[in-house]
Amino acid sequence: MAVNLAPPENLLPVPGVRLGVAEAAIKRQGRKDLLLIELAAGSRVVGVFTRNAFCAAPVLLCRERADKDIRGLLINAGNANAATGRGGLEDARITTAAAAQSLGGDDDSVLPFSTGVIGTRLPVGRMLSAIDAAAANLRADGWQDAARAIMTTDTVPKGSSRQLQLSCGATATITGIAKGVGMICPDMATLLAFVGTDARLTPVAVRRCLSDAVAVSFNSITVDGDTSTNDSCVLFASARSGAGDIDPDHVDYPAVAAAVTAVCLDLAQAMVRDGEGATKFIRIEVGGARDVAEARQVGYSIAHSPLVKTALFAGDANWGRIVMAIGKSGVAGLDPVGVSVALDDVTLIERGEPHPDYREERGAAVVARAEFAIRVNLGRGPAAATLWTCDLSYDYVKINAEYRT
Amino acid sequence: MAVNLAPPENLLPVPGVRLGVAEAAIKRQGRKDLLLIELAAGSRVVGVFTRNAFCAAPVLLCRERADKDIRGLLINAGNANAATGRGGLEDARITTAAAAQSLGGDDDSVLPFSTGVIGTRLPVGRMLSAIDAAAANLRADGWQDAARAIMTTDTVPKGSSRQLQLSCGATATITGIAKGVGMICPDMATLLAFVGTDARLTPVAVRRCLSDAVAVSFNSITVDGDTSTNDSCVLFASARSGAGDIDPDHVDYPAVAAAVTAVCLDLAQAMVRDGEGATKFIRIEVGGARDVAEARQVGYSIAHSPLVKTALFAGDANWGRIVMAIGKSGVAGLDPVGVSVALDDVTLIERGEPHPDYREERGAAVVARAEFAIRVNLGRGPAAATLWTCDLSYDYVKINAEYRT
Repeated sequence: MAVNLAPPENLLPVPGVRLGVAEAAIKRQGRKDLLLIELAAGSRVVGVFTRNAFCAAPVLLCRERADKDIRGLLINAGNANAATGRGGLEDARITTAAAAQSLGGDDDSVLPFSTGVIGTRLPVGRMLSAIDAAAANLRADGWQDAARAIMTTDTVPKGSSRQLQLSCGATATITGIAKGVGMICPDMATLLAFVGTDARLTPVAVRRCLSDAVAVSFNSITVDGDTSTNDSCVLFASARSGAGDIDPDHVDYPAVAAAVTAVCLDLAQAMVRDGEGATKFIRIEVGGARDVAEARQVGYSIAHSPLVKTALFAGDANWGRIVMAIGKSGVAGLDPVGVSVALDDVTLIERGEPHPDYREERGAAVVARAEFAIRVNLGRGPAAATLWTCDLSYDYVKINAEYRT
Repeated sequence: MAVNLAPPENLLPVPGVRLGVAEAAIKRQGRKDLLLIELAAGSRVVGVFTRNAFCAAPVLLCRERADKDIRGLLINAGNANAATGRGGLEDARITTAAAAQSLGGDDDSVLPFSTGVIGTRLPVGRMLSAIDAAAANLRADGWQDAARAIMTTDTVPKGSSRQLQLSCGATATITGIAKGVGMICPDMATLLAFVGTDARLTPVAVRRCLSDAVAVSFNSITVDGDTSTNDSCVLFASARSGAGDIDPDHVDYPAVAAAVTAVCLDLAQAMVRDGEGATKFIRIEVGGARDVAEARQVGYSIAHSPLVKTALFAGDANWGRIVMAIGKSGVAGLDPVGVSVALDDVTLIERGEPHPDYREERGAAVVARAEFAIRVNLGRGPAAATLWTCDLSYDYVKINAEYRT
């Protein structure tokens, strides 16, 4: 039961991008679990990937193909193709070569992405048939079906679109889809997110656009603090919109970058709203830090604390646990006397002392909400950061205890 | 329901140490929740304390009194006296001064220790009456009652004793008690642990003895990765046993130190066995590391992963999650190709490749046990470390969602 999250209703086609789904029966039968995305010739594609040392075979292959002309993306749900050794790498090569052939490109012109169970080989035979079926069904308006095909334990498909007018009068569209609700604490990007635009972003612009957007979206959320072996986020610019190339110093760049960031933020927040077992959507704002890294360190210490998360699940304004989490964050020389803490607009601690007006029922009223903010001021500098997380419920344990059964 | 843990049956008196308990009705009525420990004049006392920046008032006071002659310890359960500001510090001063008076010592000769809810002031009036009652009931054989008095969400009291013969023929006794089952990821010592001996350890010996013992016991366990505001571990040597002073180079030092370590390890493991909601007791052995810090980093990454912990609760040998946790540990330059992983004697991964003989049912047979080991070899050095942890169950969520209600 996701927190205030409905399926996307209006995902806009992106000129130069077509999508097709098919059933490969990878984990179970009866659902379309394979997605093929075709990119027009000349598309500019960049990705950011997990920093997990045990990264999956598809991530290794994506890195290997970083400088190739990319014509398509092949995504499967139900099997992560991670910890599968040399065999897993070979499986990814075979399936992407087949996809490339169906799109008329070179063998290494398709990037692979996998999500699901770790340590099991892909069903290559069934995937090859499904690739043919997906290639035969490529559609410009396939984003909705695509968002559904990449789900694993997600309960709601995740997608977002933005459209903007460029200075020349032409329109640019940005549409993204993503999946991921557990093993979510991205260190580079999150599970799988695919964002496409027809804006004529130059290679340097598309790279900068993605890294700026990821920093404040996918790299600012956590569900359970576990970093997947497969995290991948890809931005592709088909360059089909009117007007000339958009470099970072182009007049249109800020607006395009802002729209890409908005789409990424929608997708990242959707992951948290649909976080495994989530009943609360919590914004953590940390200010008064010496630098952003320190603000994030404190924010993640709160967001990862199982004691904070279980208290919030219970609707218990147990601020002692928030204070504990700030204190254990490891920020050097942190002085409790400077620290203030509030839940939305209810102050709990002001400069190290319990606030005299605080009453238990005021805190309880805030945490009873489905969405609220934990606001911390460290009182030692000008930097701030915002993170998003969810609570830890019985259902998180249930979902993850029963995942493979 | 603790994992293979019975209440201690035979806690040996330590000459020079007497203990008294009483009811102060701190969190609720009907249980003895206050403990006074009297130490003979000339006792040598050292403590190690939490590194949480929001450390509690009693921890601040313990640090302030590090160089005083200590004649007693005052411990209460049900209220942590943490995040209570200047008022909380004053409460700790008042109650320890009263305890000191009842023991005939200076006002600052008693160390305070508190555990329980954070952010609430102590009931000083009720505690003062209870201190008198506890002082009137000091007994050399009070360890068993003492272990029970300091419990909070513990389901089983925790204690351990060792006795050894010194080279001169005299006997030395070591007895310890501890509490703590949640907010357990000690960074210096764990919640509350009190270990006493009559061995004539010199001040330097008692300090070294404690720090060596804590490193491989309390600082090598985790329940939930949350570091308390109140962690404190104290070793006191009453120096009442026969023979002369024992310095670190004394012939008896290794045996005394080993016995202190054995008592600390018993207590630390008891905390994990009684970890909130624990159904499994898991040893994590990491070898082949470049140094101990790196081995511990990988071990804690596994031990703190909610996905690993929920899979183990379910009895699911989901080794993909173990591999994920090793990969996300942040060890620089870790090469998966060197890594081997086993569950007890069942090899899952050998030097980066799935082991050909591994079958799901073999892993399942191991994790069905109440106690087993996750064994990792990083294949890049000679160093090793061992940690202990437990699983993450519905009951962990239940206990912590309902703690204050």
